[in-house]
Amino acid sequence: MCPTPDAAPATNGSNSSNDPSHPGFTGIATQRTQRSSPYQPVGDFLSNVSRFKIIESTLREGEQFANAFFDTETKIQIAKALDDFGVDYIELTSPAASEQSRKDCETICKLGLKAKILTHVRCHMDDARMAVETGVDGLDVVIGTSSYLREHSHGKDMTYIINTAIEVIEFVKSKGLEIRFSSEDSFRSNLVDLLSVYSAVDKVGVTRVGIADTVGCASPRQVYDLVRTLRGVVNCDIETHFHDDTSCAVANAYCALEAGATHVDTSVLGIGERNGITTLGGLMARMMVADRDYVMSKYKLHKLKDLENLVADAVQINIPFNNPITGFCAFTHKAGIHAKAILNNPTTYEILKPEDYGLSRYVHFASRLTGWNAIKSRVEQLGLTMTDAQVKLCTQKVKAMADVRPLAIDDADSVIRTFHLNLTSNEEKPLLPNMTSEEKAKFEKAEKEIAAEPEQKSLDQTVAQETQA
Amino acid sequence: MCPTPDAAPATNGSNSSNDPSHPGFTGIATQRTQRSSPYQPVGDFLSNVSRFKIIESTLREGEQFANAFFDTETKIQIAKALDDFGVDYIELTSPAASEQSRKDCETICKLGLKAKILTHVRCHMDDARMAVETGVDGLDVVIGTSSYLREHSHGKDMTYIINTAIEVIEFVKSKGLEIRFSSEDSFRSNLVDLLSVYSAVDKVGVTRVGIADTVGCASPRQVYDLVRTLRGVVNCDIETHFHDDTSCAVANAYCALEAGATHVDTSVLGIGERNGITTLGGLMARMMVADRDYVMSKYKLHKLKDLENLVADAVQINIPFNNPITGFCAFTHKAGIHAKAILNNPTTYEILKPEDYGLSRYVHFASRLTGWNAIKSRVEQLGLTMTDAQVKLCTQKVKAMADVRPLAIDDADSVIRTFHLNLTSNEEKPLLPNMTSEEKAKFEKAEKEIAAEPEQKSLDQTVAQETQA
Repeated sequence: MCPTPDAAPATNGSNSSNDPSHPGFTGIATQRTQRSSPYQPVGDFLSNVSRFKIIESTLREGEQFANAFFDTETKIQIAKALDDFGVDYIELTSPAASEQSRKDCETICKLGLKAKILTHVRCHMDDARMAVETGVDGLDVVIGTSSYLREHSHGKDMTYIINTAIEVIEFVKSKGLEIRFSSEDSFRSNLVDLLSVYSAVDKVGVTRVGIADTVGCASPRQVYDLVRTLRGVVNCDIETHFHDDTSCAVANAYCALEAGATHVDTSVLGIGERNGITTLGGLMARMMVADRDYVMSKYKLHKLKDLENLVADAVQINIPFNNPITGFCAFTHKAGIHAKAILNNPTTYEILKPEDYGLSRYVHFASRLTGWNAIKSRVEQLGLTMTDAQVKLCTQKVKAMADVRPLAIDDADSVIRTFHLNLTSNEEKPLLPNMTSEEKAKFEKAEKEIAAEPEQKSLDQTVAQETQA
Repeated sequence: MCPTPDAAPATNGSNSSNDPSHPGFTGIATQRTQRSSPYQPVGDFLSNVSRFKIIESTLREGEQFANAFFDTETKIQIAKALDDFGVDYIELTSPAASEQSRKDCETICKLGLKAKILTHVRCHMDDARMAVETGVDGLDVVIGTSSYLREHSHGKDMTYIINTAIEVIEFVKSKGLEIRFSSEDSFRSNLVDLLSVYSAVDKVGVTRVGIADTVGCASPRQVYDLVRTLRGVVNCDIETHFHDDTSCAVANAYCALEAGATHVDTSVLGIGERNGITTLGGLMARMMVADRDYVMSKYKLHKLKDLENLVADAVQINIPFNNPITGFCAFTHKAGIHAKAILNNPTTYEILKPEDYGLSRYVHFASRLTGWNAIKSRVEQLGLTMTDAQVKLCTQKVKAMADVRPLAIDDADSVIRTFHLNLTSNEEKPLLPNMTSEEKAKFEKAEKEIAAEPEQKSLDQTVAQETQA
């Protein structure tokens, strides 16, 4: 059911979008490394991984983040940055939330951005009337509570929902605007009722229906299942919204696209209620593996870091250390074999290329896990000349030093430089300045131990690291 | 294929593990809220979501994290904390990595922990011999590089791999230890070769085979597919290891368990190469939704926060703001309708219960998205008495104030207290101290606007927030 090769072979980030049998086939030939799978890609006619659109909700869901307080100026800055990045839609807080929200909605609509502007309101005529006056391109309406659908179906509730929805939808359409109808907490709703409502609004010509995992309980295969079922029930587009309470928000969005969803809600760094929703950056990382050409053609990935910094500053948070793409160590390779392989061929341990994001790779070699190949490359980067034997001896010293104290990149460089200097000078300089006598002793002890390791090891310091899968 | 109800109904965090048709049926009756799905849970005989085991790799994969430098004392602290938390296995860096690593391995084995101790070494007799001498309960061996398998199969490579593997496996078994054999970069490997190797090592009685998404390229349904296929090829246990480069590491681990995997590799906060692997906390959150009884029976969840703080301090990182469960806002509810519903019934917007983790819920009401129900509950928490009409007036003032400047919880409380005081005193005190004349003017303007909103709004300040799906 899931064509294993679909994401498997992309050692250079390109994928089956170059395969004519794939619906996302772009016809653009990209340089690709040898396909590792014995199979050809299997076309998946449900999948929209090569045709998705982003509804960016930093200015709606994001405003519900605990730390968020966006003044008008900040909202404008963020909206412009999102537009520049290339998101398809920008979603704003309901103008009914507060007078300021209504004014900000009008202001942002007047900016003349390329992205379509949406506002997110309850399925109620009062809110719909207020929203259409703000100048937005479309309304995202939602049933205010999932209670109707969570309880067993009662004709009254269903009729009420459907009639209200139809009234709002026809009103918004009469104004020539896009209209999305979404349920809330879709994954804990009565499936039959859910499909009945979606089917009814689809018949009256809603632009999109929306599925929301409001509590973050959905799992990827459950998402695939529900979206695929819905895909068979409605003809309109399908928007999806996933909370990250159980760390599946990006994966769920991806599976939704595989099942035929067309739009994904994101926010920058995922900010939103509780621990937030699908992150824009995480989705970009995921989709780059699925269809690099499509993502690169639409979104300015080299602006992702600035965009994230802008929002992080606005809500006073730090970029998570493990953030995809922009986390401080996302492109840092530490274990010897990784360092070695990365120097030979980055795709060995990288499915994403830092240069695509205006970032650079960092081979971390100042640790006990250091391999001499990493040191050798660093020696060359520093413009020094050493024989392999000298590099291996130098590696022993770096490893020994790393056993004594944590080594910053500068420390390691200084060890290498001093080692190189000592090769050609008469007086032996200390590898690191101001070492305590205790440290000196520990260093010499560690050096002896490392030197005493069997030849097989010192010939290839990295083999032990080949275990670092 | 994915039984929608499988994760759907668990409004109280319990799940189909209470359904006799489910393989994970525990027989323990848990209080459950009304099932929202029209279907009964469908038994899934492949799934091990109710029987998984954790191989905790903070002291192996985690040591490859850019910031990681664990001295012996820190390793012991972390090992003890992991053991106390209840992980099934603790995996350590190869003793062949450095002399210090070897010694630390011996030291941790001597701690007499409940968790089994593993060390992760390449598939090579030298390393295997060294490892078995350290006193570990088992070895996780891996083919040092995926290049063999990534290239088209050549008899020589395959024979070499299989013969080496069998030699190591039989040696380790002869010592009475557990032995896992894993490939590297499994999702970009030649599937036929991969299965041939796994089948061969299974026949000689390997304890577990391992699948590793070394580069973080795998997607959930692809993982399900490969694990399900492997499940049909081998009889032994299946261990899985997922990197998080594309934000799918937790979701992939979950899908692997659904497909019949038995063991999941994790690290605390996910620390590891690049942006890391499946996070222990994220997996806990995911599995709590799948089978709360099983998770609660095995793991001390109330110690998760301390465990994460311990590791975060050791590698000098901050807990990500959006960390599942322990992120500072994971249980913070902001939008009016969320606040309102949470006060009525937490399960409305929470699939996880903070009390399970020794944490508490926080209803954020000091914002323009505030609903009067949230203010009412706060008024009660503060031990004040107001009529609903007074609460609604007070809410208007809090909202107006939030339009003027960001309100901390204390600010909001002081507004409420002063408002309450003013109700019974002759002289009107300012709601907030030291407001500038500019702020005063802005406040009065905002207050007028809010008061001027149609009665329908002021009767229910929260309805507008019902749009915050």
